[in-house]
Amino acid sequence: MTDTKIAVDVIAAENDKRAAALKDDYEALGNQLARRNIDINAVTAKVAEFFVAVPSWGVGTGGTRFARFPGEGEPRGIFDKLDDCAVINHLTRATPNVSLHIPWDKQDPKRLKAHADALGLGFDAMNSNTFSDAPGQSRSYKYGSLSHTDAATRQQAIEHNIECIEIGKAIGSKALTVWVGDGSNFPGQSNFTRSFERYLAGMADIYKALPDDWRIFSEHKMYEPAFYSSVVQDWGTNYLIANTLGEKAFCLVDLGHHAPNTNIEMIVARLIQFGKLGGFHFNDSKYGDDDLDAGSIEPYRLFLVFNELVDAEHRGVKGFHPAHMIDQSHNVTDPIESLISSANEIRRAYAQALLVDRAALDGYQQDNDALMATDTLKRAYRTDVEPVLARARQLAGGAIDPVATYRASGYRSHVAAERPASVGGSGGIV
Amino acid sequence: MTDTKIAVDVIAAENDKRAAALKDDYEALGNQLARRNIDINAVTAKVAEFFVAVPSWGVGTGGTRFARFPGEGEPRGIFDKLDDCAVINHLTRATPNVSLHIPWDKQDPKRLKAHADALGLGFDAMNSNTFSDAPGQSRSYKYGSLSHTDAATRQQAIEHNIECIEIGKAIGSKALTVWVGDGSNFPGQSNFTRSFERYLAGMADIYKALPDDWRIFSEHKMYEPAFYSSVVQDWGTNYLIANTLGEKAFCLVDLGHHAPNTNIEMIVARLIQFGKLGGFHFNDSKYGDDDLDAGSIEPYRLFLVFNELVDAEHRGVKGFHPAHMIDQSHNVTDPIESLISSANEIRRAYAQALLVDRAALDGYQQDNDALMATDTLKRAYRTDVEPVLARARQLAGGAIDPVATYRASGYRSHVAAERPASVGGSGGIV
Amino acid sequence: MTDTKIAVDVIAAENDKRAAALKDDYEALGNQLARRNIDINAVTAKVAEFFVAVPSWGVGTGGTRFARFPGEGEPRGIFDKLDDCAVINHLTRATPNVSLHIPWDKQDPKRLKAHADALGLGFDAMNSNTFSDAPGQSRSYKYGSLSHTDAATRQQAIEHNIECIEIGKAIGSKALTVWVGDGSNFPGQSNFTRSFERYLAGMADIYKALPDDWRIFSEHKMYEPAFYSSVVQDWGTNYLIANTLGEKAFCLVDLGHHAPNTNIEMIVARLIQFGKLGGFHFNDSKYGDDDLDAGSIEPYRLFLVFNELVDAEHRGVKGFHPAHMIDQSHNVTDPIESLISSANEIRRAYAQALLVDRAALDGYQQDNDALMATDTLKRAYRTDVEPVLARARQLAGGAIDPVATYRASGYRSHVAAERPASVGGSGGIV
Amino acid sequence: MTDTKIAVDVIAAENDKRAAALKDDYEALGNQLARRNIDINAVTAKVAEFFVAVPSWGVGTGGTRFARFPGEGEPRGIFDKLDDCAVINHLTRATPNVSLHIPWDKQDPKRLKAHADALGLGFDAMNSNTFSDAPGQSRSYKYGSLSHTDAATRQQAIEHNIECIEIGKAIGSKALTVWVGDGSNFPGQSNFTRSFERYLAGMADIYKALPDDWRIFSEHKMYEPAFYSSVVQDWGTNYLIANTLGEKAFCLVDLGHHAPNTNIEMIVARLIQFGKLGGFHFNDSKYGDDDLDAGSIEPYRLFLVFNELVDAEHRGVKGFHPAHMIDQSHNVTDPIESLISSANEIRRAYAQALLVDRAALDGYQQDNDALMATDTLKRAYRTDVEPVLARARQLAGGAIDPVATYRASGYRSHVAAERPASVGGSGGIV
Repeated sequence: MTDTKIAVDVIAAENDKRAAALKDDYEALGNQLARRNIDINAVTAKVAEFFVAVPSWGVGTGGTRFARFPGEGEPRGIFDKLDDCAVINHLTRATPNVSLHIPWDKQDPKRLKAHADALGLGFDAMNSNTFSDAPGQSRSYKYGSLSHTDAATRQQAIEHNIECIEIGKAIGSKALTVWVGDGSNFPGQSNFTRSFERYLAGMADIYKALPDDWRIFSEHKMYEPAFYSSVVQDWGTNYLIANTLGEKAFCLVDLGHHAPNTNIEMIVARLIQFGKLGGFHFNDSKYGDDDLDAGSIEPYRLFLVFNELVDAEHRGVKGFHPAHMIDQSHNVTDPIESLISSANEIRRAYAQALLVDRAALDGYQQDNDALMATDTLKRAYRTDVEPVLARARQLAGGAIDPVATYRASGYRSHVAAERPASVGGSGGIV
Repeated sequence: MTDTKIAVDVIAAENDKRAAALKDDYEALGNQLARRNIDINAVTAKVAEFFVAVPSWGVGTGGTRFARFPGEGEPRGIFDKLDDCAVINHLTRATPNVSLHIPWDKQDPKRLKAHADALGLGFDAMNSNTFSDAPGQSRSYKYGSLSHTDAATRQQAIEHNIECIEIGKAIGSKALTVWVGDGSNFPGQSNFTRSFERYLAGMADIYKALPDDWRIFSEHKMYEPAFYSSVVQDWGTNYLIANTLGEKAFCLVDLGHHAPNTNIEMIVARLIQFGKLGGFHFNDSKYGDDDLDAGSIEPYRLFLVFNELVDAEHRGVKGFHPAHMIDQSHNVTDPIESLISSANEIRRAYAQALLVDRAALDGYQQDNDALMATDTLKRAYRTDVEPVLARARQLAGGAIDPVATYRASGYRSHVAAERPASVGGSGGIV
Repeated sequence: MTDTKIAVDVIAAENDKRAAALKDDYEALGNQLARRNIDINAVTAKVAEFFVAVPSWGVGTGGTRFARFPGEGEPRGIFDKLDDCAVINHLTRATPNVSLHIPWDKQDPKRLKAHADALGLGFDAMNSNTFSDAPGQSRSYKYGSLSHTDAATRQQAIEHNIECIEIGKAIGSKALTVWVGDGSNFPGQSNFTRSFERYLAGMADIYKALPDDWRIFSEHKMYEPAFYSSVVQDWGTNYLIANTLGEKAFCLVDLGHHAPNTNIEMIVARLIQFGKLGGFHFNDSKYGDDDLDAGSIEPYRLFLVFNELVDAEHRGVKGFHPAHMIDQSHNVTDPIESLISSANEIRRAYAQALLVDRAALDGYQQDNDALMATDTLKRAYRTDVEPVLARARQLAGGAIDPVATYRASGYRSHVAAERPASVGGSGGIV
Repeated sequence: MTDTKIAVDVIAAENDKRAAALKDDYEALGNQLARRNIDINAVTAKVAEFFVAVPSWGVGTGGTRFARFPGEGEPRGIFDKLDDCAVINHLTRATPNVSLHIPWDKQDPKRLKAHADALGLGFDAMNSNTFSDAPGQSRSYKYGSLSHTDAATRQQAIEHNIECIEIGKAIGSKALTVWVGDGSNFPGQSNFTRSFERYLAGMADIYKALPDDWRIFSEHKMYEPAFYSSVVQDWGTNYLIANTLGEKAFCLVDLGHHAPNTNIEMIVARLIQFGKLGGFHFNDSKYGDDDLDAGSIEPYRLFLVFNELVDAEHRGVKGFHPAHMIDQSHNVTDPIESLISSANEIRRAYAQALLVDRAALDGYQQDNDALMATDTLKRAYRTDVEPVLARARQLAGGAIDPVATYRASGYRSHVAAERPASVGGSGGIV
């Protein structure tokens, strides 16, 4: 990390306050894990190698259709956003890559690359946007993009996606994420079959433009912004897309995009089994696509998702390397703090999943010993792995307590002074 | 109606095209209803007296947190909005009152009243807004309004609501609707009990400012904009509010503000039974607070709600006069057309509910003849009452086919020429 | 129909009472449809050719895990059940086929065939049962059947399904429906991937035993009897099954087996598009797999499903012949009446879907005229097609009002005298 | 405990194996908590005084409407059930009271009391049953009980509840829990208002029979066994009941009886605030009233409920003593093991809630520091309190690892030899 935004000595000073307690807790946990035949250092090493990408749009304050209440020091553009992302990575050592959103982050690729390089950051999947109209755009996406009934509008959307690939190639990205808001608000508004045929044809054109070492991720979502039907409404449709397109096409799972009560970890398992899990947009939700911080509402669900990922590794699934990305909207917190916290929670779920005694679990499953099988998961889950997470950060040069260290650094007030106040607004309603 | 926006001769010409067919259909239906011992003209007369208020904000194109795609001829302010509302009423003769939203519609009350008078319009319930920050507002509602932890912010919200009452008094309104977005996005963010105590204290202050002949409506909503908890989350809490405040306080039921699978008509029945049904915000939804056109997704549900209202009349419930208001967001249609259509659907559900043979129903209920009881409702519901609705409009000077007549009038292109293009936007997300 | 259970003169006498009114209503509707360029007789003819199978288990009174409250004259076995089914068909002329459930209906196939022949009935899809233990069964399905960890249990389940095929071949069935309750109640209880691999292997063995002119239908269900995960939990998994097995394998859609808020008609469209829609288990539901009478809760949803079926015909989809079956549980009604009513409602939805002006709809969809597109569906839906349904029954020798005629026939009291009282019970709980 | 079913030396031997590790873990946790200014022994002492009642029906294997798969050694009646309950308490020292269900557990009260006394057990709330028909009952509850249209049926239900009170008085119970399945399966089947009026009148009669030192708990449930409407469908209606009846009437919250996505902890807070929280039926669920083991699906939700209870203590709410009961259905586990595990999980949530730094939380809430507020809860929640739970059991004479000790005791095989095999069944369906 070359151009750090948090002074090294702040981290050192904050870590000093907490090092002794961490040492105690780490040793105590190590002893307990040793009794369970687990080497804590091996777990810490695996955790240290686990990374999750942050979304460039996540460092700005989000909002709802009712209002957006900006915070202080909102980033003015992609370069400010990269600066904020670097802070997150600097403190957590868990988020070395940033996922860009075009056109919001559109800039000279060379400048993007240079700025990121200087911050020690790389680029994860590119994200296209055909769910809103960019200023000056010739055709509107009001009635759809890749599935629009008008060929010229579809072509515009296709070309936009190809442009995203081009920018991505220039900055070192290796994947394109396509989420469309296409759908309908009324029964009869669109023909389900014809819409999906048009969508598939458009995606096939984009797929053709994909470099050999790239992947394309399609993302499903039950509803919003369309409120009666969505073209890519669930994982079933998403699988059909990936399967139709080809071997570079995969499904992206956003944890908040499902029907109520859906067993998401099972969808993850199915996609792994059929070779089509592309990766994740991590977040949490209670009602709809709430885009809350990962692990904040149902932390056990997040663990169960990671349990499938670690199980797949355990079973030796070939070619298994899902992309891990955060996709959240931070309406009432400092976005940097929420992303720090979320990265930690994601690593926490991963660490807990690593602690599952898989040989024992296999045996209980084989014997239909439901109680001991589920207790095997719970035993791993209820282990307080914070010392492992903290130690992994500490060893990599990050902060033992990243949020406290961030607050001690004064970064937010520093950028608040630099960056002019952002304007709020009343969102999608007039 | 003095200053009509749709030329009288357009209506006459359009009605002429459809009068003969309507006569035939009305007679055929009249014959069928006569066999069921129902006087069609009595039904038509009741329908003609049924009115529903339109929301001033409903005539603009809505949006989501992802985007807003404006239409042509968007109203530039409340006076344009009133003009648009007048068109709806002129064609349907079902929507003589408009519900204002402050501060969006804040103008000199005398001018408001004069403009409405000239259009033959009146004013329904006033709506306050403490879910977004108005420009120049001293305290932010980012963390709540009436339930905010800061007393000055709460006071600001109280005063805003009292101001709404003052404006309402000047223009002839008789009710205040209070919907707050207060809540939390994270477990622990707010203390449920203390938040609700603060909310109740604030509402008590507003209640004190309520004229004797006014009613105050509190509105519950499960989630959005708050995604973990909402202070007024359901009808249970809403009942507690109305019961705590006093006899002028009532609960407002928005059809889209409930948990999945909720039996809304039963909530309506309970509130009627305990004397606290204030009225409705009509709309329809499939997933969340989708704010779709009334009756567009689950028309039978709308009928079942009206079945409760007609049943209450039938049982002679005292002091029963719920307020009927539309609250929708029109993202992909011409808002005027959606409001015309919604007013018709609401009247349709009412007309169908009037056709229920209540004596027979009572008997089947008493005998636990579930099949015939439900068939009694279905028999009324499946009656095509369009001739009744059309006849009621025709007799009152409106259009037999209001949407077709609206299109024939050229109103939209006329105002599109007058009113400059509105700016879209990317909604609540950055 | 040779051995009718309802005296022909009862039908004639009841029809006589209603013939004149039907004539009037049919003519009035015919006139209205003629104005819409629809030939009512053509619609009636199509409706008369539309059939839906009734489930043998549907003529008994159902129950919940809490209790079962039997009715009078409960069928004592499959021969009584066939008698009851014949009554339904005799009155509605809509249900000539019965779907059997093995082992509940296991009897000498020759006797089954002869009894059905005498009643003018045929047999629809066979249903296997591996969700409960039959008396004397060597292995228990407590922990699963086709996906069980124990090979012998899986083999038993496979052989049971093959036996169902054998019985079906002997009685003229052409399809096997496989619904398993396999799943888990606790996270970790079963390995999602291994369970599904075992299921697929078992289904492949059954598939091999399938005659060339048969189809196999797999049925998905979100939950119940398994409450954490189900092996065939949704249409995505169901599609993977059908696609893995081969061209004789198709997906069955039960309207009550989906997550809350799911757009079922869209799933129907997707399965048609990818050649895997096998057919339906019709019923209705508000909360879970409530198994209520078709069209009783959300009649518009049933219409929208049929709109997809008629649209597929309209688009000329090849090899499209979905199976139509009812699957309901009648807890508080006379099961015969509920099945009569449901068959009518299913035909009603079909008739309404036939009335959709598809040319106009195509145009509105192409132009993104959402309001007129949805109104085109609503216009068809709100047409009261009861005269069409009644006329189709009358012409085929059935009853104009089948429930009233059934009541007039005294069938229930007649069988109540013959058949001893059934024992209730407290269901699945102790 | 006088007549123990698990040999004391089994517990001692099993505890010996685990005592050293527990000592280490307890000390390590104690050190960590000391750094957080928490005295671990004080927490352990509070946990040791926290009890939860087990349901007599919970020790039998449950089932669904599809099937019931009995286990070995099923209890033959209430005396066997009490024996099984004693085992649970003996190992956990957390469940000294049993909640009876009449008529299932109806026996001479003196014998009940003597048997329980000998086992060191007491009796918690009595449960009436008007959701199924007992053999020989004169009126059926097929169409309802307390809300039935027939006065004699209502009277029978009232008298049954009064009988439950009488039995309860004789055995030392102090509360009656009333859950009715009353409702409807079809729109129109019952009149919502009249049904509820009848229900309230019946409850008022029962209330009159309630001794001064008793409480009556009404329990709400969204659906099942009624699938369109339930008379006591949600907490709003439940509150109206308790408020109408009087100061001895309270609301019971079953965690699985709510609409999808409901914020249950908020309902708990509201009921506390308005003085009407009676207590809980603990269990867990993913879809509906799944009756799974407490904490098995969403353990964080269980913690958040306990957070409200501890918060109420912290705020010094007067007269606050909710009843804690388990209500689960154990379909695939040994019921004794599930109840042991559930009692532990409930204590776990309580222990975690005790660890919340409430002064810090208050401050963060006051400052709208959402991130730190939620982290304050998470910090408590992620603490592995198993050493506290185990130590509390150990000190009270129970087992450090109760499930392992139970298995080591051979209790199940012992009773399997004594008790004849129970018959399974196909549940509510035919």
